[in-house]
Amino acid sequence: MTNYTHDTVPTEFIDANGIRFAYRRFGAKSGVPLVFFQHFMGNLDDHDSALTDAFAVDREVILFNNAGVASSTGTTPDTIRQAARDAAAFIDALGLKTIDVLAHSMGGLVGQQLAFDRPKLVRRLVLVGTGPRGGVGIGEMPPETRALFFEKYEHQEEMWLPILFTPSEASQAAGRAYLARMMARKDRDAAVSTETVQAQATAIGAYGAEKDETYTHLKELYQPTLVVNGNNDIIIPTINSYLIQQHAPNAQLILYPDANHGAHHQYPELFVRHTKIFLDAK
Amino acid sequence: MTNYTHDTVPTEFIDANGIRFAYRRFGAKSGVPLVFFQHFMGNLDDHDSALTDAFAVDREVILFNNAGVASSTGTTPDTIRQAARDAAAFIDALGLKTIDVLAHSMGGLVGQQLAFDRPKLVRRLVLVGTGPRGGVGIGEMPPETRALFFEKYEHQEEMWLPILFTPSEASQAAGRAYLARMMARKDRDAAVSTETVQAQATAIGAYGAEKDETYTHLKELYQPTLVVNGNNDIIIPTINSYLIQQHAPNAQLILYPDANHGAHHQYPELFVRHTKIFLDAK
Repeated sequence: MTNYTHDTVPTEFIDANGIRFAYRRFGAKSGVPLVFFQHFMGNLDDHDSALTDAFAVDREVILFNNAGVASSTGTTPDTIRQAARDAAAFIDALGLKTIDVLAHSMGGLVGQQLAFDRPKLVRRLVLVGTGPRGGVGIGEMPPETRALFFEKYEHQEEMWLPILFTPSEASQAAGRAYLARMMARKDRDAAVSTETVQAQATAIGAYGAEKDETYTHLKELYQPTLVVNGNNDIIIPTINSYLIQQHAPNAQLILYPDANHGAHHQYPELFVRHTKIFLDAK
Repeated sequence: MTNYTHDTVPTEFIDANGIRFAYRRFGAKSGVPLVFFQHFMGNLDDHDSALTDAFAVDREVILFNNAGVASSTGTTPDTIRQAARDAAAFIDALGLKTIDVLAHSMGGLVGQQLAFDRPKLVRRLVLVGTGPRGGVGIGEMPPETRALFFEKYEHQEEMWLPILFTPSEASQAAGRAYLARMMARKDRDAAVSTETVQAQATAIGAYGAEKDETYTHLKELYQPTLVVNGNNDIIIPTINSYLIQQHAPNAQLILYPDANHGAHHQYPELFVRHTKIFLDAK
């Protein structure tokens, strides 16, 4: 048996609802698989081997492109609710009855919606750099922050340095280490299309605009949930992480210092330790 | 060599500044000692063997009564600043040059002040169920909450059940387990006097009233700091834990679900794991 890693596991495909989903699946075949839900504009390559390989030591890790994203076919929907239904179709097609979800940013919106829609499918939920439906400033970025997603770079991956990391030397150094990990894999995923980016932006904006000032809907987030963020998330403000913890019935919050929207990429070892404690708790 | 535990370690005494400080010291003689800073109305017996014995496996644990508290002599001051100076006198008398601080509630106010006053003495700081100077609602409890501290019970230790734990069945069960641990030690500390309780209440109120709406003073909390609380601290509102994380330069926040002012007593194993990761980080 080949022990695949983040960088060597082949991309596979599975059909569901007329969509051909691209995914990568590797790691120890024991326990509940951990399915990663990707952020705005991200494809399979934007995941982090420092996380996936560490989790793969003791569980299966599954990365996937949702409908219309990069090497998956179909159309990216312009609602989070449909993205959650698409994700469910993919997971059902794999025949999985129980998963843990590790979801970042927009992925966290989709992951929460999946947990609401399919509570028996999702055992535990790890939400990084995200917020609740109708959260503070979700899809309402200041223009200069929004512009960060459309800057041109000689090495385009450097766009993520100001989005995911803080300006501090330590955070930027951690960011460059993450970019090196992100670029290490040889066979690259397809690009994310302009149409997909547009649809995702619309979906995030609409979900953010669906205000629920008492966050009553979070009372139905029954799953044990670990909420993680940096102290100063400029994309989905950190207060949203606090709000999820305050309103969900069984949520733990961990905030890291000197960190922005990509705290898990900045502190991968610490994040993996905290998350394994959470996922493996009795 | 005797391996003392929380329940068997004798109470010792040391003189400094005309005060005879009562303390208990045990655990592995390696690394930086962990000094516990006690809460309002608490004496040596109110600490938790599920925490202290677990930490003592790989470091020294020091519990002490500050000036005027229970079996320590002297007068309990009515300012947090003087309490911090008294604590420094005790630590200096022990000859310690570097300590880690694990401080709960009022102890957290004193611990932070010590870190401001003596930044080289305090290496790392763990702050549980506490807030910053001038924090939200510190020393401004609603009358019905304040009254919880003065209720009479047949078994007086039960006063802590509504103060430290939530009304949920799970939290109350954890609370009763903590009370059993708290009462397990045979030779009991002296009672805390009415004068001490009054002075402490005055000190907390005055420190809470010293408003600093931008929390600029927290910029000088240079030490790596772990802030821990329950999701709904009714004594020092949970938002204060968030505020420390947001304003201190190097603070991590962990909030636990379904927990009140005594989250560390409710989840002792998880708290010890999280805190050891923090204290032992490179």
